[in-house]
Amino acid sequence: MVDHFGRTAKAALTVEVEATDGRARAGAIHTPRGSIPTPVFMPVGTRAAVKTLDTGDLDRLGPPVVLANTYHLMERPGPEVIARLGGLHRFMGWDGHILTDSGGYQIFSLDPKVTDDGAVFRSVYDGSYVELGPERAVAVQHLLGADIAMVLDVCSALPAETETLRRAMEMTLRWARRCRDHHRNGDTRQHAPGQLQFGIVQGGVDTDLRAESAARTVEIGFDGYAVGGLSVGESRPAMVPALAAATAHLPTDRPRYFMGLGDPIGLVEAVNNGIDMFDCVLPTRLARHGTALTDHGRINLKNLRFADDDRPIDPDFAHPLTERYSRAYVRHLLVTNEPTAGRIITLHNLAWLARLTGRMRDAVMTGEFARLRREIWSRWAPGEQPVDGF
Amino acid sequence: MVDHFGRTAKAALTVEVEATDGRARAGAIHTPRGSIPTPVFMPVGTRAAVKTLDTGDLDRLGPPVVLANTYHLMERPGPEVIARLGGLHRFMGWDGHILTDSGGYQIFSLDPKVTDDGAVFRSVYDGSYVELGPERAVAVQHLLGADIAMVLDVCSALPAETETLRRAMEMTLRWARRCRDHHRNGDTRQHAPGQLQFGIVQGGVDTDLRAESAARTVEIGFDGYAVGGLSVGESRPAMVPALAAATAHLPTDRPRYFMGLGDPIGLVEAVNNGIDMFDCVLPTRLARHGTALTDHGRINLKNLRFADDDRPIDPDFAHPLTERYSRAYVRHLLVTNEPTAGRIITLHNLAWLARLTGRMRDAVMTGEFARLRREIWSRWAPGEQPVDGF
Repeated sequence: MVDHFGRTAKAALTVEVEATDGRARAGAIHTPRGSIPTPVFMPVGTRAAVKTLDTGDLDRLGPPVVLANTYHLMERPGPEVIARLGGLHRFMGWDGHILTDSGGYQIFSLDPKVTDDGAVFRSVYDGSYVELGPERAVAVQHLLGADIAMVLDVCSALPAETETLRRAMEMTLRWARRCRDHHRNGDTRQHAPGQLQFGIVQGGVDTDLRAESAARTVEIGFDGYAVGGLSVGESRPAMVPALAAATAHLPTDRPRYFMGLGDPIGLVEAVNNGIDMFDCVLPTRLARHGTALTDHGRINLKNLRFADDDRPIDPDFAHPLTERYSRAYVRHLLVTNEPTAGRIITLHNLAWLARLTGRMRDAVMTGEFARLRREIWSRWAPGEQPVDGF
Repeated sequence: MVDHFGRTAKAALTVEVEATDGRARAGAIHTPRGSIPTPVFMPVGTRAAVKTLDTGDLDRLGPPVVLANTYHLMERPGPEVIARLGGLHRFMGWDGHILTDSGGYQIFSLDPKVTDDGAVFRSVYDGSYVELGPERAVAVQHLLGADIAMVLDVCSALPAETETLRRAMEMTLRWARRCRDHHRNGDTRQHAPGQLQFGIVQGGVDTDLRAESAARTVEIGFDGYAVGGLSVGESRPAMVPALAAATAHLPTDRPRYFMGLGDPIGLVEAVNNGIDMFDCVLPTRLARHGTALTDHGRINLKNLRFADDDRPIDPDFAHPLTERYSRAYVRHLLVTNEPTAGRIITLHNLAWLARLTGRMRDAVMTGEFARLRREIWSRWAPGEQPVDGF
């Protein structure tokens, strides 16, 4: 099989695992566009921009992949507009990878009416009724030209009854099958010939459902697999077994993506359970509210104690884009409501997380992941211990 | 005389006029920090940041000088804090020039009580009473470590009675003398040993007062001269003669700065009357509201007609920081309230204005300034004509 760049495609292999340490993996996801080293944190650019940054900033930060949101772009400016303008990469001016989530998570916060046809809900933009079903979700992502597209799934708020979780899981599986078929055969396919498609495992915190959801999603067969519907407020002792139950049934030669996770301890626990990819709005949202990630935990730079602090945001992390700015300067910009403040902390938080995933990658390569995991726990949850039974 | 870099200072020469074309000048302002090619537009970073940009952006845009505001920085974070942190350049992480205005313009929008001692007014931050007199305005600018400091002046709203304008001019002259003395002898002087200080010409649109104000300010003797209190709502036919009356009495070997001017026709008319330097919040404020400067006038990118427009913001101006972004993309970011929109247009407007002043500089060098002036009029005020009697 020859791909559209004339290369022989490794049709059955989308992730190359270069090293493992326990269940933790370090590798690379191969796509027609290039390779994504893993573990990887994907900055979120919901509406085709990471808030406060432009694409030149992304070039300088260098994340190998950024996220955009199918639902939001479907509403504004519309996928047909983006397709006419040459697709999402050209629209943003971005040569790196783009993963589009399907909109499932957004929709299910909008109190939708859900049938097998899809979801009907009120637009966050103008209150009109919007319909989104599996085929349209796939077609929109084709039109956007994402490198990696997600199936439309049904998310459940937690806690939920087992029966509710099962119904959501079953509908997710039916939709997944239709998404897979439409991904391969839909008439919009030519807009994204090299696009990968990931399935999504659901099942709440029920380990049996998670295992079943994973096994049956793998039966359908996707280029990669995501774990959805976790990190939605459940406790970590509830989350990790559900995650482990899912990953135990996922093939080792496909990427694994934990949706909506961005805190350092969450990341290290997920990698510890074999996850390769993450996204979350948290690091960029926190930044706009003045909170920076550091090797000694979160700090809110609005705090008076930083008014005279000449040190960089994280004294243990000098990054060329932010090392010139003192905590005192950033605090001044925050308390005077200067938009530059959120920008500087956004650059810092994304650079800091890229370093964290890079350190995890290096630690897996050198067999030191367990030590790094303990270090992250001691820095971010001093006094707590990682539960090795996870 | 040897300056603090060990160089022989050209004590009597702060601007080197390299070429003239009519009254228009092209040259360079020499300071202990380096040289500023003129004419030059200075982006405004009121609170030590240009809104939506960080200092890395300024490095990439490359303006030779940016403005900061004495009044605002005096209030937050306070000049003593900035001095302790190593001065404004280190605070911002900026190696280029900084000019600080004196706060006169801000104060006189706050309905101050003015005596010879200075102005008393309500803080825009917390409503408390703030005092600012000539000596304090100088000391604050010393503590900030500006390369170029401005005297504290008394601005009059226009229109105004001649007697009101005269009183403001006389007080500005008394304050100018005290500012000059404190600049040279104040005990904060060691914070800014190489600082230049500019006087400010007042007098409203009264040409006699402008001439008198200029001549008497020159008698005191400054490193450069600003024209203040214009471009405050008066008509262009009223503004230009007042400007010409002032510049006629300014020495040719000192820089001339028109305060608060940023529209293309205003710039070209000011250069036509011998002005070297400008600042204005307009280009950056317009940007945050969606308005871009182009070779065909202002456009508001929120307009529906740009929804499908794949061309760059100004099709006649490709700049490396913004050329990748289509009008359609920027419009999408504007209508969805993404902060990235204001950022992209801010970069564009500042780059566009730098090109405009660069073109004026080149035109003066090649004797084509009159042709460029007509071109700018035809593009920005089609149907109108420059009045050559100005």
